[in-house]
Amino acid sequence: MKKGELLYEGKAKKIYQIPGVEDRVWVEYKDSLTAFNAQKKGNFENKGQVNREISSLIFRYLQSKGISSHWVSDVNDHEMIVEKLKIIPLEVVVRNTLAGSTAKKMGIEEGRKLPRALVEFYFKDDNLADPFMSDDQILILQIASEEDLRSLKAAALKINQELVAMWGQAGLDLIDFKVEFGKNSKGQILLADEISPDCSRLWDLKTGEKMDKDRFRRDLGQVKESYQEVLKRLREVVHVK
Amino acid sequence: MKKGELLYEGKAKKIYQIPGVEDRVWVEYKDSLTAFNAQKKGNFENKGQVNREISSLIFRYLQSKGISSHWVSDVNDHEMIVEKLKIIPLEVVVRNTLAGSTAKKMGIEEGRKLPRALVEFYFKDDNLADPFMSDDQILILQIASEEDLRSLKAAALKINQELVAMWGQAGLDLIDFKVEFGKNSKGQILLADEISPDCSRLWDLKTGEKMDKDRFRRDLGQVKESYQEVLKRLREVVHVK
Repeated sequence: MKKGELLYEGKAKKIYQIPGVEDRVWVEYKDSLTAFNAQKKGNFENKGQVNREISSLIFRYLQSKGISSHWVSDVNDHEMIVEKLKIIPLEVVVRNTLAGSTAKKMGIEEGRKLPRALVEFYFKDDNLADPFMSDDQILILQIASEEDLRSLKAAALKINQELVAMWGQAGLDLIDFKVEFGKNSKGQILLADEISPDCSRLWDLKTGEKMDKDRFRRDLGQVKESYQEVLKRLREVVHVK
Repeated sequence: MKKGELLYEGKAKKIYQIPGVEDRVWVEYKDSLTAFNAQKKGNFENKGQVNREISSLIFRYLQSKGISSHWVSDVNDHEMIVEKLKIIPLEVVVRNTLAGSTAKKMGIEEGRKLPRALVEFYFKDDNLADPFMSDDQILILQIASEEDLRSLKAAALKINQELVAMWGQAGLDLIDFKVEFGKNSKGQILLADEISPDCSRLWDLKTGEKMDKDRFRRDLGQVKESYQEVLKRLREVVHVK
């Protein structure tokens, strides 16, 4: 397989065509880091490599638990081949503990544990700054069908269950995370995008220290070191062929 | 009955105790007008009177259609007696056509008709600027129960159906409106607060002209005249004893 034409460049990844292969795309993880709808920009060396490896490990871990994703194979340290999907334009957020914008909006102190996992949907649209949407708004605007919403919620909760256990073994508390999904040519809904400290809040279970993009968002320093530590711990608990 | 101690002063109304009467309160409609979470303030003479009469007419109209509200009786031109309720802290918004903040948030031009009525919930909290909430957020924060949410949605849609017909007879297009509900001592959910051009968008069916608080919000002028015209038309179509 050969890297073809650039199809799309996002904030943290580039997607390339693969000449002669219709149902796959080539993903390059970039070293850039953005926050607040790309108003804040940064980067660190080998960030793409770290996030690619974390994502690959998690996709393969989830696969072993019966959760299918777009991941097909790794190309090198910062690139992978994934199934080509039609992305459902919703960011699916799962929260176990309140933090960030939702805690603020609700007037609740960061760190309040929820009695059960909360699933939220945000409409993926950079121009609108990804607005929070209720199920009924999504249905009326025909962004997704009722059946799709049910599937997304069920998948998100199952992924959450597995990730809480996995990160727990790595000594990390999964506060919240964002995932995206897409449909393949057969209409199957698969986990897409990436799972990394860019789109997950991970707090050290012992010290409570933040080990994720909030270090960058909030200028806490040690961004690179935290991402590397997350990868190091993940390697110790995830053993995939 | 006598007006007692002031219990609460809101942006557009004052609520008084009634000495010796436990299950009723005395409501005074003020002449003030606020927008954008009270950052913009105004008033016009007899506004309280106009909104009190519009609300009374609507509450009695809805009563005749089998929809119960807190309205008990009018005292004078700007005051009424209502049943004392424990207010459910949700603003229930029904939209037939997209306008205002929701149109903007969704990146859709104002005026797009929806295929069916959309019900939205906002958490009533001035300090938080009444954040939009999904059903799941409301349930997890225990702001209302699943059964209450079902009741609120059903009531809001039934009220919408009646109000669309009523305003239509008055030559007005009901774009959207906000209502609040509360529970009485028996646990029954009743329509509360007010229904007026302060919390409804009403566009003239022929000219498309805005006849509601957007005239104040957007500095369109003729605020008082529009409210009075709405009342005049309502008097012609609502005939209650």
